[in-house]
Amino acid sequence: MQNRIYSNELKTKIGQTVLIAGRVYGMRKLGGINFLILQDSVGLAQIVFDAAKIGELKIGSWVKISGIAKEEKRAPGGAEIQGEEIETVSEPVEDLPIDLSKKGLNVNLTTLLNYRPLTLRHENVRAIFKVYATLLEAYGEIMRRFGFTEIKSPKILGEASEGGANFFTINYFGKKAFLAQSPQFYKQICVGAFERVFEIGPVFRAEKHFTSRHINEYISLDAEMGFIDSHEDLMVKLTEVLRFIFERIQEKNSEELKSYNAQAITIPPEIPKYKLAEIKKIIKEKYHYEIPAETDIDPKGEALAGRFAKEEHKSDFIFLTHYPSNMRPFYTMPDEKDPSETKGFDLIFRGTELVTGSQRIHNYKQLVANIKKFRLNPKDFSFYLEAFKYGLPPHGGWGMGAERLVQQLLGLANIKEAALFPRDVKRLEP
Amino acid sequence: MQNRIYSNELKTKIGQTVLIAGRVYGMRKLGGINFLILQDSVGLAQIVFDAAKIGELKIGSWVKISGIAKEEKRAPGGAEIQGEEIETVSEPVEDLPIDLSKKGLNVNLTTLLNYRPLTLRHENVRAIFKVYATLLEAYGEIMRRFGFTEIKSPKILGEASEGGANFFTINYFGKKAFLAQSPQFYKQICVGAFERVFEIGPVFRAEKHFTSRHINEYISLDAEMGFIDSHEDLMVKLTEVLRFIFERIQEKNSEELKSYNAQAITIPPEIPKYKLAEIKKIIKEKYHYEIPAETDIDPKGEALAGRFAKEEHKSDFIFLTHYPSNMRPFYTMPDEKDPSETKGFDLIFRGTELVTGSQRIHNYKQLVANIKKFRLNPKDFSFYLEAFKYGLPPHGGWGMGAERLVQQLLGLANIKEAALFPRDVKRLEP
Repeated sequence: MQNRIYSNELKTKIGQTVLIAGRVYGMRKLGGINFLILQDSVGLAQIVFDAAKIGELKIGSWVKISGIAKEEKRAPGGAEIQGEEIETVSEPVEDLPIDLSKKGLNVNLTTLLNYRPLTLRHENVRAIFKVYATLLEAYGEIMRRFGFTEIKSPKILGEASEGGANFFTINYFGKKAFLAQSPQFYKQICVGAFERVFEIGPVFRAEKHFTSRHINEYISLDAEMGFIDSHEDLMVKLTEVLRFIFERIQEKNSEELKSYNAQAITIPPEIPKYKLAEIKKIIKEKYHYEIPAETDIDPKGEALAGRFAKEEHKSDFIFLTHYPSNMRPFYTMPDEKDPSETKGFDLIFRGTELVTGSQRIHNYKQLVANIKKFRLNPKDFSFYLEAFKYGLPPHGGWGMGAERLVQQLLGLANIKEAALFPRDVKRLEP
Repeated sequence: MQNRIYSNELKTKIGQTVLIAGRVYGMRKLGGINFLILQDSVGLAQIVFDAAKIGELKIGSWVKISGIAKEEKRAPGGAEIQGEEIETVSEPVEDLPIDLSKKGLNVNLTTLLNYRPLTLRHENVRAIFKVYATLLEAYGEIMRRFGFTEIKSPKILGEASEGGANFFTINYFGKKAFLAQSPQFYKQICVGAFERVFEIGPVFRAEKHFTSRHINEYISLDAEMGFIDSHEDLMVKLTEVLRFIFERIQEKNSEELKSYNAQAITIPPEIPKYKLAEIKKIIKEKYHYEIPAETDIDPKGEALAGRFAKEEHKSDFIFLTHYPSNMRPFYTMPDEKDPSETKGFDLIFRGTELVTGSQRIHNYKQLVANIKKFRLNPKDFSFYLEAFKYGLPPHGGWGMGAERLVQQLLGLANIKEAALFPRDVKRLEP
């Protein structure tokens, strides 16, 4: 298609004959005139036709339209096309079961997901994944700029690593294998070669969650970084990464943010940070809520920590640090001042955990001792331990959920809205 | 570490006191002087020390070194450091079983992979993954520039899609599920929403290969594009994508290419293209080799097609088009001139298949008919077919193996060398 233009270019072509292509998003008649709304990959365009020229056009058809660009303040983007010719290149075989042309797509979550091949075509749904795409782009760009090498670690594992439960099992040529819950071991091993690495990839959690913020397969934005002095270095770096990401989204997706009434993100120069023990005390005193003793912090506690960050620090983010050692994975560095606490953090974004990170134990003997302390067998971690045997510098890193970030940013009620084709305990399709 | 510099900055700091950090890559004594080679994330640096200052330093230790930068033509990068202070931050607990300081890492493939946490630290091995990282970066950048939206499709599937065998099965909360062989269905569905999409993600093939060019988990660089006239549009676009990628690698990784004596890539303005039937004839006449009738083309045939491209067209690439319809997946568009042939292609890179692509059937009725022709049941493809029911424009796309590209570019004997932690029929670790 030579000389095709996109809907966002229309305003720069006033007076010219243009060719535009996309999907018939909506149609309405006003007097003898047909208003056709066309959706292309970047947005919507209004085309005005004499009724005769439109013929039997169906909503949802894919068309090529030529006509003359005209200024029109009431049209999307401030311009419209006086349609001259229309060619249908493909059309739906049935009427669409959901009307996509309405401003809001008023369907419940089950319908939204069951009809994903269709509902993804709604402007508001598409908007979510445009933001998501910007997140992927921005994360890669800033990590590379910071000297991190991009890696791709295997998702099929011979051993259920990290000593955890909740792994999906695979039949691997007759042998039992596991789906990776995180790239944890591999990114640490890679610190030995590249010093700083990042990965964007799927992780799989066989957890029977039925909440609005969990899915069983998601994209994890991971990083691991050598030569740190403590977890504080990670928190500083992560703050810069987030600042870059949100600025980029603001810049590229202002329309999409607007369509969700997404409030501007405020990241203060330094994100407030509190030890877990401190924030528990604050939450009790300020909000009269006692975090259950058997958890490190529960969702209600996180929500109140988020509220506190907003009220006290005007921040959408708050770091919680020094989680108890027995509630963090065995590889987490204990604080030398009080080894019952760890040199790690969670980052709470608008009241929900977004990132988990920590300094790791890098000393071989200390790590082996800690594995035993967790009642695990060092033999089950032999290739992981090799990297430490050959020497690793002090290091640490984080994992951040891409869907969680988009959900919180846009204020989506359920994280499944932020996954193209989400997987939950019951959903394997589409 | 404030004021730290990296090895590639040394030459710009002549006469200054610098701080450098990394791993002790090698050491040698000459007279009373110790030459220490330090590896950091970007390369190597030479540091000269009085013997007394070095002490009990071990190969493989992680150190911070301060000293004065000096010009020295014989050192890597044309500069070295007159070492003043050295601080060991971490050290190996045993002597390394493989000497990494030699120029070539002379180990067999099994040893290379068994000792991956160590061998990855060799300069030549690292080089492979620096090229790999550039490939990931460049692919994303050029696809975005061409208006493609990045997607992340699910890797856990409820149905073994594409009607094929060779799926790994998963126990998904007691239900049988499958690992995705490709994002095929999802990227096609997404054309309906975004028109152009790309994905960088793992794919899983339960094929019992024992060849030098197959692994069971690899990274696929996928694309799908709406409003094409035929597969020719895809071939043109792909050529531009490859040109960009190889230029970027040439620019960022000239050292790495040199260390593998990688010959410069030649992409002619138009990559030569031949119908499969034509190339078979040419190979028979020119090289006296008859491609077995039961295959479309065998590896030896691909190698000879590559040789022909080089000899006849001075091209490292050749497109083979019009594979037989019964040897391509059911969604492949048949050629309207001869429906026994398809509107698709393989791209052969230096004698090995690198990319497979095609125009897809976009008409619902034609697709359903073709599914039946392949003796498959349309009911097994219900959500995929929905996208067609609601209308899809003419479209097509490709899948390209990242490890295969790096293997062929660097001339690696085995594709497993181009995967950080490869998975094959027998290997699930490290």
